[in-house]
Amino acid sequence: MVEKIKLPNRPVGPFPTVLAGVEVDGRPNYVTIGACGVVSLDAVLYISLKSTHFSTQGVKENGYFSVNIPSAEMVDKTDFCGVVSGRDTDKSKLFTPFYNEVGKAPMIKECPMNYLCKVINSIEMFGFEMFFGEIVAVYVNEQCLSEGKLDPLKVDPMLMMGSSYYNLGQVVGGLFKDGVDFKNKLAQEG
Amino acid sequence: MVEKIKLPNRPVGPFPTVLAGVEVDGRPNYVTIGACGVVSLDAVLYISLKSTHFSTQGVKENGYFSVNIPSAEMVDKTDFCGVVSGRDTDKSKLFTPFYNEVGKAPMIKECPMNYLCKVINSIEMFGFEMFFGEIVAVYVNEQCLSEGKLDPLKVDPMLMMGSSYYNLGQVVGGLFKDGVDFKNKLAQEG
Repeated sequence: MVEKIKLPNRPVGPFPTVLAGVEVDGRPNYVTIGACGVVSLDAVLYISLKSTHFSTQGVKENGYFSVNIPSAEMVDKTDFCGVVSGRDTDKSKLFTPFYNEVGKAPMIKECPMNYLCKVINSIEMFGFEMFFGEIVAVYVNEQCLSEGKLDPLKVDPMLMMGSSYYNLGQVVGGLFKDGVDFKNKLAQEG
Repeated sequence: MVEKIKLPNRPVGPFPTVLAGVEVDGRPNYVTIGACGVVSLDAVLYISLKSTHFSTQGVKENGYFSVNIPSAEMVDKTDFCGVVSGRDTDKSKLFTPFYNEVGKAPMIKECPMNYLCKVINSIEMFGFEMFFGEIVAVYVNEQCLSEGKLDPLKVDPMLMMGSSYYNLGQVVGGLFKDGVDFKNKLAQEG
C-alpha cells in the first residue's frame, strides 16, 4: 500500500539547469537558473531573474538574453555562476563567449546547446522579473548529433532536484508515441 | 575544435514531465505538460494550459490545480494524457485520485510526488493561460525517502528532451556546493 508523507511546501523539481547569458556594462555575465522553460507552443522561453540581480538590468537594456545548456561535466563552473554575483565577481572570463550577427547577448561556446532569445514581454512576479524571449537562433555542438539529429544524451544536460544536480539516464519512452500505443491497446480491449 | 550547427528555432528541452490534475465537471481530469516550473524563490509553481483546453475552465472554476510527478514506469499513461483530451475521453479512471481537506483538485496516488497549488495569479500568453499557484501541500510516497529525506532517484521522474522521455541518471554535483568549492579553489590560486 502506498503511504503518502507530507513534505514542506517547497518546490523541489525536477527543474532544468541553464546558464543565462547577458551583456552587462559591455561584458558578458552568466547566471545559473532553474526558472526557465516554455509557456505555450510558441518558440518562446522564459527566464526569471531577481529584480535586483546584476543581469536583470542587462536584459532590459539589450532586449536579448541567451539560454545555454551546460553539460554535466561543467557542474563546478555552472554552480559557481549561481553562487557569486556579477556585481562582485567578473565572470566574463569563465567561458568563451560567441555572438550571432545581432550581437546583443553572449552565448557560451563550451555549452553544447545555446538559445538566443529576443525579449517580447516581461512581467514582475514576487520580486522577480519574468522575461519572455522569442527564440531567434539555436546552436548545438556538432558532436551532439547522431545521424544528423540532436542526441540529448550527447548534450548531457543537468537537472536540479532536491539538493543535487543529475544528468539524464536513458530513453524511457517517446513523446506522442507511447500514449498512442496505449490508446490503441485500450481501443482493442474495447 | 567545437563546431556549432544551427538548429530550427524551437525549444527542445530538457523540460520536466508532469501531470496536471484538475476537477472538471465534477470529475478528475489529467493533462501532461512540460510547461511547469518555478518563477521566483517563492513556493509557487506555474502551469500553462491552452486556453481552449478542457482543463483550463476547471482551474478557473476551482481556483486549484495539482502538479503530479509521474515515475518513468508510468510513461505510457503519462504520454496518453497528453494525446487525448478530457473532452472526448474520460481519463478519471486512469489513476486513483486523492484529495486533501480542501478538496479542490485531484492528486494522483500512483505518482510518487504531488503538489497541491492554489491559483494566486494568471495571465494569458500566446493562446495559453499561465496559472501561478501557491504550493499549499506537498506529498511524497514513503518509499521515495532515504534516511528520512527525499531521494529523487527513487521518485524516478521523467524529463522531455527532443522527441523522447528520459529518466534521471545519477548525482553529478551538489547545489550551492560544487560552486563554493570552485570559488575556494579560485581564491587559493589567487
